[in-house]
Amino acid sequence: MPNPTAAMLVIGDEILSGRTHDKNTHHLAGQLTEAAIDLKEARVVSDDPDAIIAAVRELSAKYDHVFTSGGIGPTHDDITADCIAAAFDTSIDVRDDARAILQAHYDAQGLELNAARLRMARIPDGAALIDNPVSKAPGFTLKNVHVMAGVPKIFHAMVASVLPSLTGGAPLLSQSWRVDRGEGDIAAPLADLVDRHPVVSFGCYPFQKDGLFGANIVARSQDEPALNAAFRDLQQVFPA
Amino acid sequence: MPNPTAAMLVIGDEILSGRTHDKNTHHLAGQLTEAAIDLKEARVVSDDPDAIIAAVRELSAKYDHVFTSGGIGPTHDDITADCIAAAFDTSIDVRDDARAILQAHYDAQGLELNAARLRMARIPDGAALIDNPVSKAPGFTLKNVHVMAGVPKIFHAMVASVLPSLTGGAPLLSQSWRVDRGEGDIAAPLADLVDRHPVVSFGCYPFQKDGLFGANIVARSQDEPALNAAFRDLQQVFPA
Repeated sequence: MPNPTAAMLVIGDEILSGRTHDKNTHHLAGQLTEAAIDLKEARVVSDDPDAIIAAVRELSAKYDHVFTSGGIGPTHDDITADCIAAAFDTSIDVRDDARAILQAHYDAQGLELNAARLRMARIPDGAALIDNPVSKAPGFTLKNVHVMAGVPKIFHAMVASVLPSLTGGAPLLSQSWRVDRGEGDIAAPLADLVDRHPVVSFGCYPFQKDGLFGANIVARSQDEPALNAAFRDLQQVFPA
Repeated sequence: MPNPTAAMLVIGDEILSGRTHDKNTHHLAGQLTEAAIDLKEARVVSDDPDAIIAAVRELSAKYDHVFTSGGIGPTHDDITADCIAAAFDTSIDVRDDARAILQAHYDAQGLELNAARLRMARIPDGAALIDNPVSKAPGFTLKNVHVMAGVPKIFHAMVASVLPSLTGGAPLLSQSWRVDRGEGDIAAPLADLVDRHPVVSFGCYPFQKDGLFGANIVARSQDEPALNAAFRDLQQVFPA
């Protein structure tokens, strides 16, 4: 059975202007690989309702899971929750369970749960809350879309809250082998290897270091004996 | 007149598996902001012809420019050039000008221009070559799609080769102001600022440092006097 599929949707002008570096996609990619869920696509869109709604609808229809990052804070440019509700034609309002979490959090700090902070309790109808152990304001899951914060520490915590509840496929195993030759020398023998090992996929990732060209060749498969055989073959074709 | 628009398309399984961190989008984002071209969207797709072709067609139709990264080397998983040709129903073959560049390069190194390396001279019909001062194998521009290498050093060099030929709009000016208060306290006065300065856009980027919450507020506009007025207002609303 093929693995479940997923897409990442990063929401935020600050990524597209080059102001902020998106690190959440890389984190999610690693976590999903471990969980045997195939990340098939990642997108970054701006803080524009039409762009967000269109991307959510398309990715949600196309993949088993969608993970979003960003736009669920208290300020005027935090529009993700409203866009998710709009994408699924669902109503959205302050919800009692989310409000209670925020109320307890701000009471404990002696801070007021003002109108701006209360925006973070706006949850689309029918969504399940995602726990936020860092700063309390919850994320949520609506249908197959998991809506999480953009601040990396909070995003990581929310991914950790969500992932155990999702069922992955058979884990993809991989082995990596460094070859200190240019890709142009590697390509032909590697193509023969690809032909000899049909249930193993090979990636060739070139690097340039101290003026020398080389590449890491990564063999991947869900079939452990086949992977081991392919790796032995790889080592013989490109001796250390 | 609005600025020209652009999209980035990163091609590569290694990004989606979490093996490699994409740094090219961040670099391009900064360069385009300086050139007054608005990066509206970024995508990562896997080494799958259908996914690449569909993304190229969609992004090319939607934006003024598309920049791609990855998949133009000599190995079996380098399929970008063929996919670009397919996306535009154009033929592709080894082209004499590209072959001459590679021939000179490998001759100078005493290396053979073998079949794998010659794959890098496959250029879609009607494309213009993009100079690669790092490792010679050229990128190319076909219609509004600029096809570049994934290795960051080469990607940077190719962006530098392409950008001067593109016409940007009026540069977007920005000023940033740090506020050492939580977003929940910032949101309401910031919303009033947004209302008072209609030609300025405000972004609020929260951070958490040493247990304290704060945010950088960035004001952006193409109108310098309006931006300056908004920034003075911002500093008065949130004194240092």
